[in-house]
Amino acid sequence: MRIAIIGYGGVGRAFVRLIIDKKDELYKEGINPIVKYVLGSKGGVYDKEGIDIEKFIDFPSNKSICEYPEIGSKSITFDTVLKNKDVDIVIEMTPTNLETGEPGLNYIRRSLENGIHVITSNKAPILLAYKKLYQIALENKVQLGIGCTTGGALPSINGGIIDLAGANINSIEGILNGTTNYILEEMDRSKIEYPEALKKAQKLGIAETNPTLDVEGWDTATKLLILTNVLMNENKTIEDIDVKGITSIKLSDIEELSKKDKKYKLIGRTTILAGKIKMTVGPEIVGSDNLLYNVNGKDKVVKYTSDTLGDLTIIGGASGVIPAAASILRDLINIHRGYKYIRGIRDE
Amino acid sequence: MRIAIIGYGGVGRAFVRLIIDKKDELYKEGINPIVKYVLGSKGGVYDKEGIDIEKFIDFPSNKSICEYPEIGSKSITFDTVLKNKDVDIVIEMTPTNLETGEPGLNYIRRSLENGIHVITSNKAPILLAYKKLYQIALENKVQLGIGCTTGGALPSINGGIIDLAGANINSIEGILNGTTNYILEEMDRSKIEYPEALKKAQKLGIAETNPTLDVEGWDTATKLLILTNVLMNENKTIEDIDVKGITSIKLSDIEELSKKDKKYKLIGRTTILAGKIKMTVGPEIVGSDNLLYNVNGKDKVVKYTSDTLGDLTIIGGASGVIPAAASILRDLINIHRGYKYIRGIRDE
Repeated sequence: MRIAIIGYGGVGRAFVRLIIDKKDELYKEGINPIVKYVLGSKGGVYDKEGIDIEKFIDFPSNKSICEYPEIGSKSITFDTVLKNKDVDIVIEMTPTNLETGEPGLNYIRRSLENGIHVITSNKAPILLAYKKLYQIALENKVQLGIGCTTGGALPSINGGIIDLAGANINSIEGILNGTTNYILEEMDRSKIEYPEALKKAQKLGIAETNPTLDVEGWDTATKLLILTNVLMNENKTIEDIDVKGITSIKLSDIEELSKKDKKYKLIGRTTILAGKIKMTVGPEIVGSDNLLYNVNGKDKVVKYTSDTLGDLTIIGGASGVIPAAASILRDLINIHRGYKYIRGIRDE
Repeated sequence: MRIAIIGYGGVGRAFVRLIIDKKDELYKEGINPIVKYVLGSKGGVYDKEGIDIEKFIDFPSNKSICEYPEIGSKSITFDTVLKNKDVDIVIEMTPTNLETGEPGLNYIRRSLENGIHVITSNKAPILLAYKKLYQIALENKVQLGIGCTTGGALPSINGGIIDLAGANINSIEGILNGTTNYILEEMDRSKIEYPEALKKAQKLGIAETNPTLDVEGWDTATKLLILTNVLMNENKTIEDIDVKGITSIKLSDIEELSKKDKKYKLIGRTTILAGKIKMTVGPEIVGSDNLLYNVNGKDKVVKYTSDTLGDLTIIGGASGVIPAAASILRDLINIHRGYKYIRGIRDE
């Protein structure tokens, strides 16, 4: 399998490390990964015989990869990949831009148009243009792996596409953001107010310096939107979701609930009411008899209800760059095995 | 997709009903199901153009299907299917015989040898001969769908093969039997002893007249064994499992635990200790902070721990003939989509 890696940040590096560490497992699957390209924002590395990744992985992360000896260059870009036509799959891991989806959207679209499979960790292009990208993938008989965009290691997309194949999904409910789940738990456990719990999460690297997307509910909304559009065949936008965050929750509220064996959880929810889709994100009160009550810390959960296969609840999704990279590798293996990332869309 | 159905009991009938009801969904997947054969124990029904299943489904269930007008006959057997070579997939749903695996084992083996995909709901052949059957499937480039054998609608096999692709599974833990889970919950809720709760379950059709396989832990052991052999690439037998049931649990034990927010659950567990596989089935005490605590009634759960994708807990598995049939349909759709039911076994 000939691979081009676009975007070489934390997840990119973890992915390269993983295909080194998982060499034996990949061999057993019949996969021989040949990384031909690694592209950064200022240029890249190319070896038509395959980059020696065991050497490359040790290149200092504070240097630009286009300075990599002999095969690094500013002139190696995504256009080089398309011109050379010598890869089977593009792993797209550029930074997320929720306004335009660029540059990832362009990379994904052009790869698919050129008959190259794509796996992306980038929510924005999927959020903004999934239907179109899916159609292009279909026309070019290639796959678009998006498992990493809706909870990383949590197999939320797989659950809906594969585990509920043949069943209608009637509702989606989930704790889809680990940061807010951690903050709410920390307020409860350490008896501290929201700002203090946020600071703790930031110190531990769980929350970002600018935590708005997480704590105001937008990250949850983004994941819910992708799941809803992909699994329920909808064409909704972020404006269709009623979004509330967790910033106004007081310790006293949490303590009051705790006495009744209840907790706040930030829940994304899609339901069908009288034939109409309704999507909300906001803190909800969950009792101790609810499966979601014990989903703590950075864990995530998604719950589907279906017509013929009953309820399906999936809990997991370890956080960090290794699980994120491992979820990309999962898509890569499944694409190699021949799996089609489709759900109920006629392709013959 | 040309189909032969072998075994026409409750699940068989539910499966035929389901492909009628799910016609539109199957069309969207590009599947046109043509049922050519339905075989019972005394003969069968065959139409080379495809049986009119919307008419056939109304045939009284107390009559033998070989009496079905015009196309039913005692002379239509599994040999007819092999001789005619006119189906793509065999759905094997004959009764389970844990001693010999027959007649299902023979049907599965010979179908695969003849280049026909197989989906089975029958635990026994998978328990007794999975490795061999898998090898035959591989050699003949066909698929063997076994999703229904380890919890029906609960996607336990999918979870291990697809959702943890590329990760090593380090342990398996689960509540894999809905009947015992119901009985334990019923003892707690209605404050009754085991024999009374069993009677209640039998009255509701949740427990069988001879409940031994369920309540003594053998059903759980069977499912655990299949999961362990398939997902951890082992070759264990039922004798390798230390099996205890729930029959000696007293109401007073449960009440004592309840005071401490704890419950008994019948848990199947595979772990690796100092490089050695250890498998147990037995009642375990579970606290209210454990995800398994809230898996109640007829629900089931499986939890995997892995190296790179963290923990994965899957809860679901509605009971009954419709979810069982729907889990067979799920395998059928995924086989049509091109998915290979393999895990880390080189096939190139």
